[in-house]
Amino acid sequence: MSNILTSRKQDYSQWYNDLVLKGGLADYSAVRGCMVIKPYGYGLWENMRDVLDRMFKETGHQNAYFPLFVPKSLFEAEEKNAEGFAKECAVVTHYRLKTDPENKGKLIVDPAAKLDEELVVRPTSEAIIWNTYKNWIQSYRDLPLLINQWANVVRWEMRTRLFLRTAEFLWQEGHTAHATKEEAIAETEQMLDVYARFAEEYMALPVIRGVKTPNERFAGAEDTYCIEALMQDGKALQAGTSHFLGQNFAKAFDVKFASKDNTMEYVWATSWGVSTRLIGALVMAHSDDEGLVMPPRIAPLQVVIVPIFNKDAEARQKIDDKAAQLIKELRAKGIRVKYDNDDSTRPGWKFAEYELKGVPVRIALGARDLENNQVEVARRDTKEKAPVSLDGITDHVAQLLEEIQSNLYNRALAFREENTRSIDTWDAFVKALDETPGFISAHWDGTPETEEKIKELTKATIRCIPLNNKHEAGKCILTGNPSTQRVLFARAY
Amino acid sequence: MSNILTSRKQDYSQWYNDLVLKGGLADYSAVRGCMVIKPYGYGLWENMRDVLDRMFKETGHQNAYFPLFVPKSLFEAEEKNAEGFAKECAVVTHYRLKTDPENKGKLIVDPAAKLDEELVVRPTSEAIIWNTYKNWIQSYRDLPLLINQWANVVRWEMRTRLFLRTAEFLWQEGHTAHATKEEAIAETEQMLDVYARFAEEYMALPVIRGVKTPNERFAGAEDTYCIEALMQDGKALQAGTSHFLGQNFAKAFDVKFASKDNTMEYVWATSWGVSTRLIGALVMAHSDDEGLVMPPRIAPLQVVIVPIFNKDAEARQKIDDKAAQLIKELRAKGIRVKYDNDDSTRPGWKFAEYELKGVPVRIALGARDLENNQVEVARRDTKEKAPVSLDGITDHVAQLLEEIQSNLYNRALAFREENTRSIDTWDAFVKALDETPGFISAHWDGTPETEEKIKELTKATIRCIPLNNKHEAGKCILTGNPSTQRVLFARAY
Repeated sequence: MSNILTSRKQDYSQWYNDLVLKGGLADYSAVRGCMVIKPYGYGLWENMRDVLDRMFKETGHQNAYFPLFVPKSLFEAEEKNAEGFAKECAVVTHYRLKTDPENKGKLIVDPAAKLDEELVVRPTSEAIIWNTYKNWIQSYRDLPLLINQWANVVRWEMRTRLFLRTAEFLWQEGHTAHATKEEAIAETEQMLDVYARFAEEYMALPVIRGVKTPNERFAGAEDTYCIEALMQDGKALQAGTSHFLGQNFAKAFDVKFASKDNTMEYVWATSWGVSTRLIGALVMAHSDDEGLVMPPRIAPLQVVIVPIFNKDAEARQKIDDKAAQLIKELRAKGIRVKYDNDDSTRPGWKFAEYELKGVPVRIALGARDLENNQVEVARRDTKEKAPVSLDGITDHVAQLLEEIQSNLYNRALAFREENTRSIDTWDAFVKALDETPGFISAHWDGTPETEEKIKELTKATIRCIPLNNKHEAGKCILTGNPSTQRVLFARAY
Repeated sequence: MSNILTSRKQDYSQWYNDLVLKGGLADYSAVRGCMVIKPYGYGLWENMRDVLDRMFKETGHQNAYFPLFVPKSLFEAEEKNAEGFAKECAVVTHYRLKTDPENKGKLIVDPAAKLDEELVVRPTSEAIIWNTYKNWIQSYRDLPLLINQWANVVRWEMRTRLFLRTAEFLWQEGHTAHATKEEAIAETEQMLDVYARFAEEYMALPVIRGVKTPNERFAGAEDTYCIEALMQDGKALQAGTSHFLGQNFAKAFDVKFASKDNTMEYVWATSWGVSTRLIGALVMAHSDDEGLVMPPRIAPLQVVIVPIFNKDAEARQKIDDKAAQLIKELRAKGIRVKYDNDDSTRPGWKFAEYELKGVPVRIALGARDLENNQVEVARRDTKEKAPVSLDGITDHVAQLLEEIQSNLYNRALAFREENTRSIDTWDAFVKALDETPGFISAHWDGTPETEEKIKELTKATIRCIPLNNKHEAGKCILTGNPSTQRVLFARAY
């Protein structure tokens, strides 16, 4: 099986596509730029969603659902937001098809069913939501309003890649309303922390928490906080964003509240989101040339049991019985386990298949093993395998899953540390981007013009200004102008 | 609070809208025919979704996600399906907006960004899914393929009502592929049974399982199975459908498989769905003039504890402490409970508010009660209240929730039985529809023409031919022609 995959060294980009397609995460579709999320990929998303949803609820948020469509007049109300997304909007203009009079059996758009006002398929929901909040918020008693939505959104991208950049994607978007600026900023920071903890504790993905430069802010935000991760090819990936929106949307949609001392004030807003893009990050952070590597805590399948049958029917029965017992014990511990006793494929094929799918632990169960009261346990991350006694096997497996989880995190963290460089000269900067790609910590003079120029020259962008960044005097990597702190550069997905 | 609601007798339709809006389930939106599902309504939907999802997984299904858009050429491939939905399709024709050159700050659709092929916003996903299945199914080993999708769909309805009929709604759609006709029919029937069990055991909604007449079939189906429920105004509501699609989609999308004896055969299909419409059914089946009545098993909130404070700070502390203990015990039993100690509203206001929201059990906790080691427990369904000893209170509440669940079901079942009439003459049929609306069991000659005529004359439709229907000779209610069985008529939502 493994020889049908492209290796990372051969072609990193093709390796990624191979894994997503052959690992059963997603498939191309007949719709330009849209993908099909296959059951294995969707199972992963369900696990991610369930953890995040619990974290949102623990921090006081409730889910709701707002319309897919945004009337154009609402969409354009917050000017910067509208301008930022206008170029990638799918637009509904008609509400009916009819039979083509010149081509029986074919349909055409019915020109008589043209909408008076076009509807934008939501690229993000601030506009439709703040237009609704206007009716929900009258007094300080209605605040804070802490709402999240799980939804599909559409952004018409010209160059798409499975999970990383698709025209339609699944995400969650939190939209909160607050009485004070301080509260809104605290919420923005809290949700960044939720994302960072999710990435690190569940996805085993170390992230840098930071703030975007004005150039890279969300359209309509006063401040965009982000978490940034490093992929195995040394490119950065923005894994989640949390925006402090100030009073921009409250002003655009005229959302005011009566304060405790009965003055009318504009509401303060935040929004924050992560998407199925995270699955792309997961694939690129942990996987290897044999296939996917799933972090145990969110793996759709944590353990697979593969029987090694011989011709002896009695021995086979014993293996089946032992497997049934093992599955019962593992499930009682909340472990997601599958017994693959399909006769139509051989154990070696199955080993390769579950390696490709990145199942963290594989247990092989043969007649001779059973005689010795043991099984063979293989871990996906290091590919080590060893005989393990059946006494206490479930505890062993539960512990091994946690060990794999930590190992993946530590491995990714070590990789990031090795590939984060402090650089002080332009030549070294350019050379590093080409020869040893990764994060570059470098001085910047703080102007949008310099940032733009660096991007033009190198395709590297400022990923973020890390939170709690150390202040130190220095000279801008490009202009030599004075700088007060280093920022984090990289080429990025 | 209750006096702001319209009563059922006054105006049933307005009563329904009042409950949905004031009960906090949903709100109107700025998009024609689309609604906002508010947190309380979405919490209900989450509970319904979680139960259904578990039932789907227990019957071997996996979730996946397919694109929102269907290219027109795929949409029209299965002719009957296309014809059935063409009149209510939202169509995306452009993928970009641009600044209006004549009106700065406004946007217009960019005529240069016209799509070569229009995209239909999915009204249902058979077309896009079967076009994908074509690539996933080669051999009998790939079958059965048992997939479900949770998604939003759009059907451009001219007359909309909150939950019951909205342009966009949330639903699940199962799409399965099988090697034989028998297997596909068994799947169709199995999923109807899942829906019926969900409606009866969780929603406390008794349903008739039946088959639609050809006139009322899903566009593209060979047979449509359904569950039908009766609302308090005597109108029927179709609560779920399960379709046997024959080989129609396999032929339209050329999906064939190599059978065990290596012949190429078309695949057999089913599809089945329930939607947020079920929330409308729930509201109309159980609620009363004081507000919503939630079946405990899916109620977002099962128990609310309301403190009855006096001015004494020490007594207040005792109440808070007891409430905290009670909540801990109830949560340990998996009961969803809230303590409403908001000082800004009085107990009487809270009682009315939670009655309006249909919370099954209310516990009032006052200083005098505590002295007597008791609380006041009120049930929403019968509005009975009684003092209950604090010893064993959690068991009492758990049992009461189950009792309320059964009572709601039995009450709805008794209502349906009282309002299901066997009628044999046209005059009695017409009179019953106007004066004692409900299900009418009557003979029909089996022709689409007669069915159509009855609909024209009375607005009543054949809701279904019940499964395991008794065969008996009779005369058609309209034409007097011979009939072999009674079918179920009603006016319907």
